[in-house]
Amino acid sequence: MDRILAEIKSLDQKAMAEAQKRQDNLTKPQGSLGQLESLSVQIAGIKGNPRPRITHKVIFTLAGDHGVTTEGVSAYPSEVTPQMVYNFLQGGAAINVLARYVGARVVIADLGVASTLKRHPDLRDRKVAMGTQNMAEGPAMSKEEAIRSIEGGMGLVEEELSKGMDILGTGDMGIGNTTASSAITAALTGADVEAVTGRGTGVDDKGWEKKVKVIRKALERNRPNPKDAIDVLTKVGGFEIGGIAGVILAGARYRIPVVIDGFISGAAALIAASLSPQVKPFLIASHQSVEEGHRILLDHLGLKPLLNLGLRLGEGTGAALGISLVEASLKILDEMTTFSEAGVSEKEDSHKL
Amino acid sequence: MDRILAEIKSLDQKAMAEAQKRQDNLTKPQGSLGQLESLSVQIAGIKGNPRPRITHKVIFTLAGDHGVTTEGVSAYPSEVTPQMVYNFLQGGAAINVLARYVGARVVIADLGVASTLKRHPDLRDRKVAMGTQNMAEGPAMSKEEAIRSIEGGMGLVEEELSKGMDILGTGDMGIGNTTASSAITAALTGADVEAVTGRGTGVDDKGWEKKVKVIRKALERNRPNPKDAIDVLTKVGGFEIGGIAGVILAGARYRIPVVIDGFISGAAALIAASLSPQVKPFLIASHQSVEEGHRILLDHLGLKPLLNLGLRLGEGTGAALGISLVEASLKILDEMTTFSEAGVSEKEDSHKL
Repeated sequence: MDRILAEIKSLDQKAMAEAQKRQDNLTKPQGSLGQLESLSVQIAGIKGNPRPRITHKVIFTLAGDHGVTTEGVSAYPSEVTPQMVYNFLQGGAAINVLARYVGARVVIADLGVASTLKRHPDLRDRKVAMGTQNMAEGPAMSKEEAIRSIEGGMGLVEEELSKGMDILGTGDMGIGNTTASSAITAALTGADVEAVTGRGTGVDDKGWEKKVKVIRKALERNRPNPKDAIDVLTKVGGFEIGGIAGVILAGARYRIPVVIDGFISGAAALIAASLSPQVKPFLIASHQSVEEGHRILLDHLGLKPLLNLGLRLGEGTGAALGISLVEASLKILDEMTTFSEAGVSEKEDSHKL
Repeated sequence: MDRILAEIKSLDQKAMAEAQKRQDNLTKPQGSLGQLESLSVQIAGIKGNPRPRITHKVIFTLAGDHGVTTEGVSAYPSEVTPQMVYNFLQGGAAINVLARYVGARVVIADLGVASTLKRHPDLRDRKVAMGTQNMAEGPAMSKEEAIRSIEGGMGLVEEELSKGMDILGTGDMGIGNTTASSAITAALTGADVEAVTGRGTGVDDKGWEKKVKVIRKALERNRPNPKDAIDVLTKVGGFEIGGIAGVILAGARYRIPVVIDGFISGAAALIAASLSPQVKPFLIASHQSVEEGHRILLDHLGLKPLLNLGLRLGEGTGAALGISLVEASLKILDEMTTFSEAGVSEKEDSHKL
């Protein structure tokens, strides 16, 4: 892990300046494509290429179970986690549909599902343990397990590099993981538990109150150190969340744009950015989730989401749509003609648009 | 025009109910894909098909000039309108790039460019006049021209039907047309001119103040009747705006989902919805423009935009991205497996998810 953290470099300013210059000469008023323009410049900086293209797109969907579900914090039983993993492997879940639509391949990994999954050629086994412990009663995992989960995610990225990867998206599956993500967000941003707790897959008012109570209890009992992201992951995290943090860090290390999904991936990004603030310029927030804590978390990371569609599914579904918008931004940069090429007049009050 | 207005019917409730039922049985918590779910149900209602697919996508980009530019309300000269039309025809503009990316064809039409355009096999000639008159001095056009512009747009849609059209997007090109759109929005929503006036392609503070003054003058001099959309179009509109209103109305008539672009297309949608409120359920707002008046206009129409990327280019660029999200929503509806097919457990507190 330390090796990868040490190897994350800053964006390529020269490539960004060149990309910006090209954007400013394309046949449109400067800035009129808003975030599509800034996105393309960011990707140029990540890739060190003023006119980058995207061919290989990969979405990492990591699964893990949560001991805290015994507290009744989720509308669904834990058995849904492995069932959904099989659904991913059969290609019938939302992430499969959207990944196919945007031309991305999905890497499915078991980081800590609480049952023994049937082997499958497309399932990566990075299981740390059979689900976390109940964080309301003690730490969710050991420090050693926390590090193994992060390294598991890093390994997944390194394993995929040889197959080609120009952009990556993150995704999650784990019944109970909004509870862990709310706890992580409260611990790392200092926000109040109520402000960062949402309804997950759909608990009612009573369920929400219980969820808040359980998260408060977990934070009080475990007292995670907000300056130590590994401690936060250990005390109130999840294996898939640690794994996603690892995917994000390795993405930045290998200069691959990292499109983060919703609330759970956002909590993982908080952990990643706490371990290495250098990771932030590599991040693209795909969407604004309906989960209450997500806006707080994105503000904390300084990220503006591309989409606001009321999504709250996870799996990487928002990331898939975000990848498509990033690709659109690069097509603009690459394929539009400049004012001089097209013979279009520039702005009246300036010699140069 | 009257024939098409009379033939706009309401959405197919049975198809919508069937689509909703399928959405609710797909392997995800109900509602967890937010607007992607409601979009798919809306399209089912428009097409009268509980599981609709999209193959043929068309974006109509209509051009026209504005006499009001002599007041100095735009950062660009009027000569840019024909230059950009040629750019569209050569495939080098933003709309060409994004339309290619989402697999849409672009129909370029001259509704009232203030110069004689060179003939081109891909340019539809629906010219009403050589640009509008200066609305600050009198009506932008005659009532007869207003109706011809709307019918011009309707004709474009009817002409394309035989080539296949499962969804359409609207787009505009016309130096000065944010000025007309602000005037239309003020007239039809009753909002204050300052609240609906933005910076267009990029005027500075002084330019903005002048623009507000010109719009106020135009509204005072012409006194458009807010209950009569044809009168509003006549007094303070534009030929491409009337044309887009026609495209929208014909889209609804032929039960084609209408993805509207930004502020100018929005002003056209206001006119269309004023002529026939029945058109509203056929509309999808692709994005929230940075133009000040756009939010007011979308609220007035009861539309929630899909994207908020700070776009302010027009041409149909936002509509192209919106079409892609609509297609994604239909892939979800069509390709995901249901709980029973996948063997995934449903919500614990309910016999049915």
